[in-house]
Amino acid sequence: MESLDQLITRLNKLPGIGKKTAQRLAFHIISLDDADAYRLAQAITDAKLNIHFCPVCGNFTESEVCDVCSDVKRNSETICVVESARDIMFMERIHEFRGRYHVLGGVLSPMDGIGPDQLRIKELIKRIEDENVKEIILATNPDVEGEATASYLAKLIKPLDVRVSRIAHGIPIGGNLEYVDDVTLAKSIENRREM
Amino acid sequence: MESLDQLITRLNKLPGIGKKTAQRLAFHIISLDDADAYRLAQAITDAKLNIHFCPVCGNFTESEVCDVCSDVKRNSETICVVESARDIMFMERIHEFRGRYHVLGGVLSPMDGIGPDQLRIKELIKRIEDENVKEIILATNPDVEGEATASYLAKLIKPLDVRVSRIAHGIPIGGNLEYVDDVTLAKSIENRREM
Repeated sequence: MESLDQLITRLNKLPGIGKKTAQRLAFHIISLDDADAYRLAQAITDAKLNIHFCPVCGNFTESEVCDVCSDVKRNSETICVVESARDIMFMERIHEFRGRYHVLGGVLSPMDGIGPDQLRIKELIKRIEDENVKEIILATNPDVEGEATASYLAKLIKPLDVRVSRIAHGIPIGGNLEYVDDVTLAKSIENRREM
Repeated sequence: MESLDQLITRLNKLPGIGKKTAQRLAFHIISLDDADAYRLAQAITDAKLNIHFCPVCGNFTESEVCDVCSDVKRNSETICVVESARDIMFMERIHEFRGRYHVLGGVLSPMDGIGPDQLRIKELIKRIEDENVKEIILATNPDVEGEATASYLAKLIKPLDVRVSRIAHGIPIGGNLEYVDDVTLAKSIENRREM
């Protein structure tokens, strides 16, 4: 059945969806009511048509500029630099950060041919120069590429007379020393705070 | 972002796709090339348009009658009864069974309001009477509902002068006595074969 194989192939291309899951989903989809199946297809098409990148920060948006960039109540002196637009969603969920964002669109990864020119670094420098920015918070992920990217950006930005900070690493709240990996445990000692 | 929320909601309705996975998939989809996203939407629509149930056995098909039912080389004296059209795919993969299938469309489940009339049982009886069937293999899953459905069908079909068999239960090949559950282990003794 060509249509079924085609659907399985397409679903299989999604991240984290293996062959078996793709099959299960495909069989579920062809068992759906016509209306529900079309609504799923339509939701994909609509999202693709309506959502684009914010020209300022790189966040996803349905408006011309994203909700964060167009919110005058947000502090424009602090920019939190993240890898992807999805990270903004995680940050916003904690209602802790009231500054603005800048999406890099990835991390430095020479093996994959991703150097500084492939990331939105020039745009970040321009914003620092134009928007009277006082602090840059580097919130790339605490993995090898994320750390390297943060170091690279820190070196690049510090000469511009801007405070540069990195999100804290340590033991997660509710975590247990026994189950924390060695690197995190070492970081939690290195970054200890006086009480 | 309404389009994004809508897409997440729709993906979240798929089986085994929780909130977090739906978010991850939605962000992946809106990051796809336009062409790839539309191909995914199109694959869903096409599958839904082209695939329907085989009027004979209940398998999925793009033709009028499914590949198994229209294959004259298959033995029409044996019918393997399965819960869903998906089970036919698993059976066909082993290239062991050369008879035909009959999809019940579920299992007896009084709690969910599924009685004999909600399953394709009348159609099965009609096939047994019309098609000169010699054996019915009951291949419902070995869970409570599947076993109950198999017992019900066995009682119903035996008086029609047809051999009724049930797929074997036991320890999976490569399995280990230590990790097999008690019921399966008991079944493996009960269904032991002389060597």
